[in-house]
Amino acid sequence: MIKKILVIHGPNLNLLGEREPGIYGSNGIDMLNKNIIERAKEQGLECEIFQSNHEGAIIDKLHAARQKFEGVIINAGAYTHYSYAIRDAISAIKIPCIEVHISNVFARDEFRKNSVIAPVCKGSISGFGFGSYYLAIMALSEM
Amino acid sequence: MIKKILVIHGPNLNLLGEREPGIYGSNGIDMLNKNIIERAKEQGLECEIFQSNHEGAIIDKLHAARQKFEGVIINAGAYTHYSYAIRDAISAIKIPCIEVHISNVFARDEFRKNSVIAPVCKGSISGFGFGSYYLAIMALSEM
Amino acid sequence: MIKKILVIHGPNLNLLGEREPGIYGSNGIDMLNKNIIERAKEQGLECEIFQSNHEGAIIDKLHAARQKFEGVIINAGAYTHYSYAIRDAISAIKIPCIEVHISNVFARDEFRKNSVIAPVCKGSISGFGFGSYYLAIMALSEM
Amino acid sequence: MIKKILVIHGPNLNLLGEREPGIYGSNGIDMLNKNIIERAKEQGLECEIFQSNHEGAIIDKLHAARQKFEGVIINAGAYTHYSYAIRDAISAIKIPCIEVHISNVFARDEFRKNSVIAPVCKGSISGFGFGSYYLAIMALSEM
Amino acid sequence: MIKKILVIHGPNLNLLGEREPGIYGSNGIDMLNKNIIERAKEQGLECEIFQSNHEGAIIDKLHAARQKFEGVIINAGAYTHYSYAIRDAISAIKIPCIEVHISNVFARDEFRKNSVIAPVCKGSISGFGFGSYYLAIMALSEM
Amino acid sequence: MIKKILVIHGPNLNLLGEREPGIYGSNGIDMLNKNIIERAKEQGLECEIFQSNHEGAIIDKLHAARQKFEGVIINAGAYTHYSYAIRDAISAIKIPCIEVHISNVFARDEFRKNSVIAPVCKGSISGFGFGSYYLAIMALSEM
Amino acid sequence: MIKKILVIHGPNLNLLGEREPGIYGSNGIDMLNKNIIERAKEQGLECEIFQSNHEGAIIDKLHAARQKFEGVIINAGAYTHYSYAIRDAISAIKIPCIEVHISNVFARDEFRKNSVIAPVCKGSISGFGFGSYYLAIMALSEM
Amino acid sequence: MIKKILVIHGPNLNLLGEREPGIYGSNGIDMLNKNIIERAKEQGLECEIFQSNHEGAIIDKLHAARQKFEGVIINAGAYTHYSYAIRDAISAIKIPCIEVHISNVFARDEFRKNSVIAPVCKGSISGFGFGSYYLAIMALSEM
Amino acid sequence: MIKKILVIHGPNLNLLGEREPGIYGSNGIDMLNKNIIERAKEQGLECEIFQSNHEGAIIDKLHAARQKFEGVIINAGAYTHYSYAIRDAISAIKIPCIEVHISNVFARDEFRKNSVIAPVCKGSISGFGFGSYYLAIMALSEM
Amino acid sequence: MIKKILVIHGPNLNLLGEREPGIYGSNGIDMLNKNIIERAKEQGLECEIFQSNHEGAIIDKLHAARQKFEGVIINAGAYTHYSYAIRDAISAIKIPCIEVHISNVFARDEFRKNSVIAPVCKGSISGFGFGSYYLAIMALSEM
Amino acid sequence: MIKKILVIHGPNLNLLGEREPGIYGSNGIDMLNKNIIERAKEQGLECEIFQSNHEGAIIDKLHAARQKFEGVIINAGAYTHYSYAIRDAISAIKIPCIEVHISNVFARDEFRKNSVIAPVCKGSISGFGFGSYYLAIMALSEM
Amino acid sequence: MIKKILVIHGPNLNLLGEREPGIYGSNGIDMLNKNIIERAKEQGLECEIFQSNHEGAIIDKLHAARQKFEGVIINAGAYTHYSYAIRDAISAIKIPCIEVHISNVFARDEFRKNSVIAPVCKGSISGFGFGSYYLAIMALSEM
Repeated sequence: MIKKILVIHGPNLNLLGEREPGIYGSNGIDMLNKNIIERAKEQGLECEIFQSNHEGAIIDKLHAARQKFEGVIINAGAYTHYSYAIRDAISAIKIPCIEVHISNVFARDEFRKNSVIAPVCKGSISGFGFGSYYLAIMALSEM
Repeated sequence: MIKKILVIHGPNLNLLGEREPGIYGSNGIDMLNKNIIERAKEQGLECEIFQSNHEGAIIDKLHAARQKFEGVIINAGAYTHYSYAIRDAISAIKIPCIEVHISNVFARDEFRKNSVIAPVCKGSISGFGFGSYYLAIMALSEM
Repeated sequence: MIKKILVIHGPNLNLLGEREPGIYGSNGIDMLNKNIIERAKEQGLECEIFQSNHEGAIIDKLHAARQKFEGVIINAGAYTHYSYAIRDAISAIKIPCIEVHISNVFARDEFRKNSVIAPVCKGSISGFGFGSYYLAIMALSEM
Repeated sequence: MIKKILVIHGPNLNLLGEREPGIYGSNGIDMLNKNIIERAKEQGLECEIFQSNHEGAIIDKLHAARQKFEGVIINAGAYTHYSYAIRDAISAIKIPCIEVHISNVFARDEFRKNSVIAPVCKGSISGFGFGSYYLAIMALSEM
Repeated sequence: MIKKILVIHGPNLNLLGEREPGIYGSNGIDMLNKNIIERAKEQGLECEIFQSNHEGAIIDKLHAARQKFEGVIINAGAYTHYSYAIRDAISAIKIPCIEVHISNVFARDEFRKNSVIAPVCKGSISGFGFGSYYLAIMALSEM
Repeated sequence: MIKKILVIHGPNLNLLGEREPGIYGSNGIDMLNKNIIERAKEQGLECEIFQSNHEGAIIDKLHAARQKFEGVIINAGAYTHYSYAIRDAISAIKIPCIEVHISNVFARDEFRKNSVIAPVCKGSISGFGFGSYYLAIMALSEM
Repeated sequence: MIKKILVIHGPNLNLLGEREPGIYGSNGIDMLNKNIIERAKEQGLECEIFQSNHEGAIIDKLHAARQKFEGVIINAGAYTHYSYAIRDAISAIKIPCIEVHISNVFARDEFRKNSVIAPVCKGSISGFGFGSYYLAIMALSEM
Repeated sequence: MIKKILVIHGPNLNLLGEREPGIYGSNGIDMLNKNIIERAKEQGLECEIFQSNHEGAIIDKLHAARQKFEGVIINAGAYTHYSYAIRDAISAIKIPCIEVHISNVFARDEFRKNSVIAPVCKGSISGFGFGSYYLAIMALSEM
Repeated sequence: MIKKILVIHGPNLNLLGEREPGIYGSNGIDMLNKNIIERAKEQGLECEIFQSNHEGAIIDKLHAARQKFEGVIINAGAYTHYSYAIRDAISAIKIPCIEVHISNVFARDEFRKNSVIAPVCKGSISGFGFGSYYLAIMALSEM
Repeated sequence: MIKKILVIHGPNLNLLGEREPGIYGSNGIDMLNKNIIERAKEQGLECEIFQSNHEGAIIDKLHAARQKFEGVIINAGAYTHYSYAIRDAISAIKIPCIEVHISNVFARDEFRKNSVIAPVCKGSISGFGFGSYYLAIMALSEM
Repeated sequence: MIKKILVIHGPNLNLLGEREPGIYGSNGIDMLNKNIIERAKEQGLECEIFQSNHEGAIIDKLHAARQKFEGVIINAGAYTHYSYAIRDAISAIKIPCIEVHISNVFARDEFRKNSVIAPVCKGSISGFGFGSYYLAIMALSEM
Repeated sequence: MIKKILVIHGPNLNLLGEREPGIYGSNGIDMLNKNIIERAKEQGLECEIFQSNHEGAIIDKLHAARQKFEGVIINAGAYTHYSYAIRDAISAIKIPCIEVHISNVFARDEFRKNSVIAPVCKGSISGFGFGSYYLAIMALSEM
């Protein structure tokens, strides 16, 4: 049973609320993080949140997760579309990992349709705004 | 606020439990449907379920949904990958529609990576077994 | 000389007027059909109209046309882009068949630029709104 | 040992003899079916024949075959080239399925070279006219 | 309301009747032009006709049309398939422009299937022999 | 009527039984050849068998077949996928040639899906183990 | 040191100010040319300006430049994307040539992303409105 | 029997000798033309030579050739790679046309490997320097 | 009006002068930076310069620019060709950003022709050596 | 100066006259060879002719040519389109090599348009029937 | 002569032994490093080892190598397949660099077949487990 | 433990030293073979060497290796890039096989980047001149 989860926000997600609000909404990352922690708590999950714009830092964090977490929620931002290194990190650690996206990535630029990390994730959720994270929390809590 | 939802199971989903249990699990569509109705009820949603192997019948059902439902959950099965006609039906009716898949479609055959309906859906959930449907119900209930 | 013609409306055309009025206009299929019949009459043509969202039903209708019609006008909707089965039906019956589209399909999504039925049709007309049908009627009446 | 087999004719095969006789020959589906039944009998096989232009109906029939047949011969017509839904149906039922084509599909249009159902069939036979069916019957009788 | 129209014949159309009569028919451009003028007259339209094998001359003519015509019919011949310069000219002038082709371009060489000007035209008509022009005249007269 | 046939085994088929028995079975080429000869005899056909790993030797043999055989069965092994020279040899001699494969080539590596010789063969049979050859013999005997 | 420069405006640039003002601005080619000459003068450069919609005329002008100019600024308009003949002309004359575009060609249609002349130009400037020309003048004046 | 031939030099060939001498040699077009005329004379052929950088002018010249020449030698320069309009002109006139290139176009840029006019020419000769023209003259003289 | 600008040098630019001097020149980054500052001063612009080989650090710097700069000049080095994360950072901050390259990227390796950041930049300048930066400074100073 | 030449006929050319006479003519290889020798003699060239269906034998022959010949004419038949090994052999020996084809390979199957040996040959001649060889002889005699 | 070498382990290699042991073996990076140092010593080479999951850190380290090492062995992990920035770093420093992979990258995912760094490395070794590093050491020691 | 090894040199390697010495060095195959035998001896390995330009002969040799060798080193020359038949031979025999190349194949023509035999080899070594063979010997000796 999953008790502690890690949430990873990838590049540019620190600008949430400010960046393209038509796509990502006008609420900032602080409110998102507050909600994530609450929602996790409601499901009996302890939750750590990590944001970085550095591909390597995300990989390091995924590696470190091996000792501390039983589930990972990752919004890899644009790294989703080309970071085979993050892909390898996800498949190297054996913790179930859920891919989330705030926007419906399939309804945007052509290059956003391809996720190189999806094949090594447990599942994928996109298009529900901040709700994508909450659904992922519920998915982990039911495992 | 969404009160009545329609769940559409596309082609071959009537064989759930029997078909490739390694991928889809060994529980049948009856148990899935029972659970869907219960889960919907828990969220205060009334729920109709429809299964068809016929592309045209799925389109007809989506059209009919305009008068009766405020939300649709669709697992279009293999039609996901080529039915531009279902895509047009989803975008023609203005009800929010959520795409679900039982398996992680990104981790299977190459052709399963492309969804022609995803761009016109509200969001997309895949890889959580029957849980993909339950998460979609929760997503609709929060709208 | 052509006397009796069949007009086939493919998937989602029953929602005309309601669906994406920016692209398809706000007049419904009833008004379109009324106009088609009038226009045909003006050209001395008897006209039957058929709409279906089912690929198989469209094929059945094309086959049945062999005994009853000397010309076919078909707006195959989204099936235009992938139904090799409708293509084969058109080339199997030997009646001249005209492909029509209400919108300019070349100015929309990439996938709408390819018609798999065009190579086996007599000719193709697109972009004139309901007028595409009227032009096709005139084309048949002059054959 | 196989005793009862199902033969499925896909879209436009009902027009055999009439459609492009240069490619398909001038004998109709009735003569083909009569011969199929005789040939099957010679091999000690009971045989049911089904023709439909509807993708969904073919899927339904394949599903129904689970209870009644030990082998399937399918000429999926143009669905061969894009019906991933039929492909999934074939792989869902566990009965050996043989793909047949009357013409040599590799010597015609480019799009006819790709069969999406071949990878899930037991084997594939094409180019022998009606003989493709008879060879498939013999193949099943030897299993 | 449209009163004066310009008809542009692109490269090699001056050889009509002489060039590949199996595809283009054996009537020459003079007869075509005579018919176009008559048909236009019948619809109450004044009509100028221009033929050139020079891409630049076609662009110049399109530009000049801004001051004199309310509608353009263009058969851009082989320029259809690569002249982004003509495309830009059509979208630069704001007069509705209809693309016509004598033959069914979709049933010929692969390269003829792509029209770079179609996306900026009002509509497209192909496959009706000289009739493609007459239908375009009727389309303009109804605008 | 066909009386004498040539069976050509292409590269690596001499290792049958030894090579990837999961795919090709554990019976060797000697047993296959013995069976082929018997089956041919049952159909009243005289049969010569030739194996070579050399593309040029296969072409030479096909050429020589002009004087001696009325039918050819060829399993071109991996040459199937790139030997345009064997393709030209098959189309140069005017004897009907049947392509066979032991395994279902469509269910293996991507490159095995394309046969450059299929378009110039009479027909193609694959996936029936040694049975593919026997079916080809029957196909020739019925011509 | 560069003293005399040639500025070439390609197809449709004569319609500047009138054509898609959202993309190209509302100032016409006369104002642009006036500014170009002034800017050139400020940099001590004498400047001739040439506009043509004719690919061949642009090539002729480039050839003629060999005797008279030490630098060329070219906005080849849509010819940028397919005129290998202009490309060859640029590489044949040995005068440094700078490619300019008013709009950011990389942010528009897919086909506008590829420049066949860029590889043989000295450098490329795009996206600065009329400023693209002024920057090119400054670049030439510093050589 | 061929008596009068037309030689067409396409874009940038007027700069021969000056342009990339490493590829095209250092002799100019005047010497080439003098030699062509002499070589033609030796073969008993009368010869007219035409050079233009204008695609349309080349098409016009090809059309005019119908009345005056029995053979055409064309070096279409860069138009070789994209001028479907020149291709159509060549196939419209029924005079045998030979494609020549001074350099070995297959050993240079990728885009130079594709000739859109080759499929409608009688034959193609490239890589022999000026000799490509002389060989074409000999080829025509033997027809 | 723009007063303070940020110049970002991406990966490997710290080796300027040392790395492939044939392409990038033999002057080092220190001289480049000195010149940039002088040139900016001449235009009345205050200028900060940042170099990093870390994709994440470049993103962080772009984010930080929101509070301090009104314009950005970025030479993203090889990240130009795949860093969708930098692309998202540029479009997330709303400061005009100019893409520069020292060499003519279109005249080098195939992969260098595609810039994933160009579509979200204001404009693009390449091929002028260090001059590309100076032109960008002038472009910003004129905004 | 070239004195001795080698002519290589690749696969299936031994069937000349018999194979697809519509494409290759009805004269056999013996007549071709007789004519080649005569034509060579007329040009003062001694000539050896070699035919093989074996890729390796052609390579061996090319290697052996180093000691004995100053020029090679090669019609590599279908090997033209994929034999990188023959390509390497041609570029390894330093004798000028001319590629010839009897038919116009650009006017046939798509796969025949690509020659992997053309880039390493001196020149290429195709489409002149047996004349392609004679022209190559003349080309060598003028070197 | 090479005396000091740098060994770079890219992303996820710190998890060696733990990550996909079926592919990478069950020995950890510590044992690998110990062996590398011993093997280097045996060859008279001094050896520094560096591991990072950060693309930028790997580039920094490569740059720093200029002053200290005469040879580099790099296993760039997943960066192999897309890091043009590391590629540029390798070609910028002029030290011979050898690419190594533990597994046979050609026998795994499609995307692993392409190495963007291979073209700028001295050589490439893959598939020998830890032995790939040892062979690279021997290769450097022999230079 | 491996005792006897087979070294296979593919097409054109017999010309080593003579062929493109800039790429392959100026030492001939005799010196290479002498060195290979010495190096093998040093590692306690007995070694047979085989060279052929014939694809079929290489396959035959690989088959024969089953009875006599425990390891194979193969430089398949240009066959590397298209010989699926050699690929099948390597995977059919169960002896570990190492692919070697003298030059860095990744830094040359595009077509040389793809090895169809690499996926079935144990490992791959390229770019070390003759050293590639010596490294392969050491790799085998350590197995």
